Amino acid sequence: MAEYKAPLRDIRFVMNEVFEADKLWASLPALQGTVDLETADAILEEASKLVGGMIAPLNRAGDEEGCQWTEGAVTTASGFKEAYQTYAEGGWVGLTGNVELGAMGMPKMLSCQVEEMTMAANFSFGLYPMLTVGASLSINAHASDELKEQYLPNMYAGTWAGSMCLTESHSGTDLGIIRTRAEDNGDGSYSVSGTKIFITGGEHDLTENIIHLVLAKLADAPAGPRGISLFLVPKINVNDDGSLGEANNVSCGSIEHKMGIKASATCVMNFDGAKGYLVGELNKGLACMFTMMNYERLGVGIQGLGAGEASYQNAIEYARDRIQGRSATGAVAPDRAADPILVHADVRRMLLNMKSTTEAGRAFSSYVAKQLDLVKFSEEPEVKHRAEAMVALLTPVAKAFMTDMGLNNTIDGQMVFGGHGYIREWGQEQLVRDARIAQIYEGTNGVQALDLMGRKTVANDGEWTAMLLAEIREAAVAIGGEFSEPLLQSCDRLQATTELVTERAKSNPNEIGAASVEYLHLFGYTAYAYMWLLMTDKAQQKLEAGEGDSEFYRAKIITARYFYQRLLPRTLGLVESIKSGADPLYALADDMF
Amino acid sequence: MAEYKAPLRDIRFVMNEVFEADKLWASLPALQGTVDLETADAILEEASKLVGGMIAPLNRAGDEEGCQWTEGAVTTASGFKEAYQTYAEGGWVGLTGNVELGAMGMPKMLSCQVEEMTMAANFSFGLYPMLTVGASLSINAHASDELKEQYLPNMYAGTWAGSMCLTESHSGTDLGIIRTRAEDNGDGSYSVSGTKIFITGGEHDLTENIIHLVLAKLADAPAGPRGISLFLVPKINVNDDGSLGEANNVSCGSIEHKMGIKASATCVMNFDGAKGYLVGELNKGLACMFTMMNYERLGVGIQGLGAGEASYQNAIEYARDRIQGRSATGAVAPDRAADPILVHADVRRMLLNMKSTTEAGRAFSSYVAKQLDLVKFSEEPEVKHRAEAMVALLTPVAKAFMTDMGLNNTIDGQMVFGGHGYIREWGQEQLVRDARIAQIYEGTNGVQALDLMGRKTVANDGEWTAMLLAEIREAAVAIGGEFSEPLLQSCDRLQATTELVTERAKSNPNEIGAASVEYLHLFGYTAYAYMWLLMTDKAQQKLEAGEGDSEFYRAKIITARYFYQRLLPRTLGLVESIKSGADPLYALADDMF
Repeated sequence: MAEYKAPLRDIRFVMNEVFEADKLWASLPALQGTVDLETADAILEEASKLVGGMIAPLNRAGDEEGCQWTEGAVTTASGFKEAYQTYAEGGWVGLTGNVELGAMGMPKMLSCQVEEMTMAANFSFGLYPMLTVGASLSINAHASDELKEQYLPNMYAGTWAGSMCLTESHSGTDLGIIRTRAEDNGDGSYSVSGTKIFITGGEHDLTENIIHLVLAKLADAPAGPRGISLFLVPKINVNDDGSLGEANNVSCGSIEHKMGIKASATCVMNFDGAKGYLVGELNKGLACMFTMMNYERLGVGIQGLGAGEASYQNAIEYARDRIQGRSATGAVAPDRAADPILVHADVRRMLLNMKSTTEAGRAFSSYVAKQLDLVKFSEEPEVKHRAEAMVALLTPVAKAFMTDMGLNNTIDGQMVFGGHGYIREWGQEQLVRDARIAQIYEGTNGVQALDLMGRKTVANDGEWTAMLLAEIREAAVAIGGEFSEPLLQSCDRLQATTELVTERAKSNPNEIGAASVEYLHLFGYTAYAYMWLLMTDKAQQKLEAGEGDSEFYRAKIITARYFYQRLLPRTLGLVESIKSGADPLYALADDMF
Repeated sequence: MAEYKAPLRDIRFVMNEVFEADKLWASLPALQGTVDLETADAILEEASKLVGGMIAPLNRAGDEEGCQWTEGAVTTASGFKEAYQTYAEGGWVGLTGNVELGAMGMPKMLSCQVEEMTMAANFSFGLYPMLTVGASLSINAHASDELKEQYLPNMYAGTWAGSMCLTESHSGTDLGIIRTRAEDNGDGSYSVSGTKIFITGGEHDLTENIIHLVLAKLADAPAGPRGISLFLVPKINVNDDGSLGEANNVSCGSIEHKMGIKASATCVMNFDGAKGYLVGELNKGLACMFTMMNYERLGVGIQGLGAGEASYQNAIEYARDRIQGRSATGAVAPDRAADPILVHADVRRMLLNMKSTTEAGRAFSSYVAKQLDLVKFSEEPEVKHRAEAMVALLTPVAKAFMTDMGLNNTIDGQMVFGGHGYIREWGQEQLVRDARIAQIYEGTNGVQALDLMGRKTVANDGEWTAMLLAEIREAAVAIGGEFSEPLLQSCDRLQATTELVTERAKSNPNEIGAASVEYLHLFGYTAYAYMWLLMTDKAQQKLEAGEGDSEFYRAKIITARYFYQRLLPRTLGLVESIKSGADPLYALADDMF
């Protein structure tokens, strides 16, 4: 496995040059005094050292060793505990949290870069703080001040972790049918009983306490999703003075044996009359969960991005070192027994697939993070309102498209290694196994596509898509150049497809699910093409001004060209598939499958 | 994991109805008295019982247990030895081998069905006989009569196994640079020394002897691939009377830890002055290897087919049982908490992806097997000659396209399971891990694509492609109907692309590698569309004649429609990607990656 190096130059290009973070942050009063480019840069430097020096080296051993379950206790792999402690002490768990409760209040556009580094270096490790950050977000947004003060400072400090307990064995995508019950104790607390599965970080030895956010129903709650409430259930009860009390009636029944992310504990959690506290209003638990969903889902998308980056770094190193065969146009290393495999067109194709989608993905994740920051920090209602729409629209794309590209990129990387990619030694097969989960959890990519096509598009007659398309078209026209025309054509395709499905869905609701996955990909390729337009525009400006490293900027333009010529045409096939509609999916009767 | 059931009805449809095996076999004098439909049917029945009853049940445990290496000895997983013995005693290893040396001499179109069953049920298990069959083929075609008589009867009987020793750690795709050396002992034997890696079944406890076919070079051999010779090197030396003698100087240094196929021993093999015998002529070892390549490569393609079938069987069972959410058009199971997930458009899409490509793949594998049979058994020079061209052209497509579809299909199946697809319990994640190897070994799919685009297409100015296209167009016109026009359009696209790349390659050899993978996919989708045309033609005839189970035949037509409307359009994007040519791949200088 190549030693992971955080792509700081690329991160700075996206954050500082393409999206001009300094101007953005300066325009948001809430961020003044909190962050500027200098602070951000120091944070990125520090993160890259921590991740490269301490977290990346644990990745392989974590996969080999996995987590161990013994009588309810979960032991993480060697080194994880120490690394987590250092991570927590560095304040990284509280990077974006509430300043008033001890966190750093940094913008998402900065923290998403740190997330990428962590996930690229060690997917399993990254999940522990990620779940804590997600739980903190939900508590901060919906819990009482008392609960916030009692729990958040320790969560931000990383001494307590968090978990999200949604899924039950019979209830995954369909949360309306959960069976976990809560009973009002009459003293401000509730008794929570039920079994949750697939709970990431439900139990482990990294922190002194774990704060579970648990979806449950009261006995008299309405049926379905409108009867779900959210409860904060600590592993160890917390006394009024903040000290730890007795263990709560929470236990870990077992951990799952999985395809990958083996160093992340995926737990079966039993709540047996566990003491819990309501977060938000009764029966509005799903809404409270959704507060953190946009953040978590972008975070999962970033896992795909990180996996792609790790795969690229691993594969390019191998492609330079490994010699095999000769260049089709004549030996480039005639003094050696063979040429480096980087000479072969198909190897370059796989590397450019990874490079062009990873760099576009990084820009896209920063773009979505910027929208999240505008929602959170902007004081202009119109800006905030528009950003809310963009967050809603783009979150499923970020989650699903970035992770679909993530799997493709780990697979392409594996292929660069040939047989060596299939054995454990080179670390590449672990990337494939780890990356696969990101397409599945936090709402499968199929569910994300339904969300995009249904709730976010058809339900509002494509209003949000039209807003985004107007923005892209304006940029394409203003910037001009070689990418303008193909991008405008992509916009036309996306618009026509949006209209087609919206119209068809009026008479047949199955049209939404029939189009959804291909539509999300059409959307994703168009969004990435937009990112490449913005990146090449900045690169062109720098080249014309003779500023900075011209090779770096020329590489951006060449990589964009690859994306436009080689990958964007996939949208042609997607549009045709979508046009076929729902009929071919339902013509086969259920018993004929 | 769903219990594997051999798809006998579908196999018979393809073999007996679509390709009319009885007529084919009756027309080949060499096969008369060997096989007819009744014999074939009995063989398929017997194979399905053996595979379903004994081989499939070992699949999961084999993955858990893996192979164990102890001081040079390899122990296979529990049950493998007994199952292999039963398999061997049933004569299955010798199904297609030389009748004169004790094998059954069955046609490939029959044996490929048995291969599909075995691979679908237990990928790792299937590799042991597959390697033996491959080695036997090579020995039968190129070794002296003495060697054939000494080794083949026991290999056909399955008491001795075979292995193919090609790869070295520095030499995989590029065999010209191998370092294993052979020295003439002057007594008709050679001394072979060197280390081979990634040797499937290089060492195990299933048989009393293992016959290695080893590529090596004599000290004075020409450099590169033209200096490679092939040697038969037994694990245990064989006395003149056929009894086993002393152990040869062959040892297994270790086994690989891999992403999947864990019950298949992938060995590092050390030859330390091991006694070996020349197979074929000196320095013509690669040609001897290529004799079996067409068979092995189709066999690997069939692994992708089998993985897809297993994935489909697993996923459809889950999609019927698992309830989650409601149909978009209103509850179909209002008495239950939710509807079976089969109601959801996107779940159907994934199932139909699997179904339509697996059924087309089965037809395609039988079609290629038919060509292999014509090469082997036909006595008409023109038929033989044409079949040779088709085998050469279609082998890389069968190997690569069927395994690419195989991975897609295991991944689609995994997605049907949601989170349950990621944990080991349901067996689905094993299918993904196992299927992945088929794209990598026996020449990566990238290498297959280069073979198709370069040697099999550009090198003969597209002559063979034109032959196939003429056949397809003739059938499309003769059969007519709804699939005729889109298939003719696909043919036009394939032809235009062939001409484009052939023309461009004249001035830039990199154009071949730049187009190859997408070209292979364009080719594969067109070939599958052709298979669907043939299958629907037969189904239509049966429906019109009122023969057989009409629902079965209607399902064929509906599934074909899905393939044509939903998957075939992918070729549009492929053509555009190919058009972009080699420039976007070489514009980025090596140090800019």
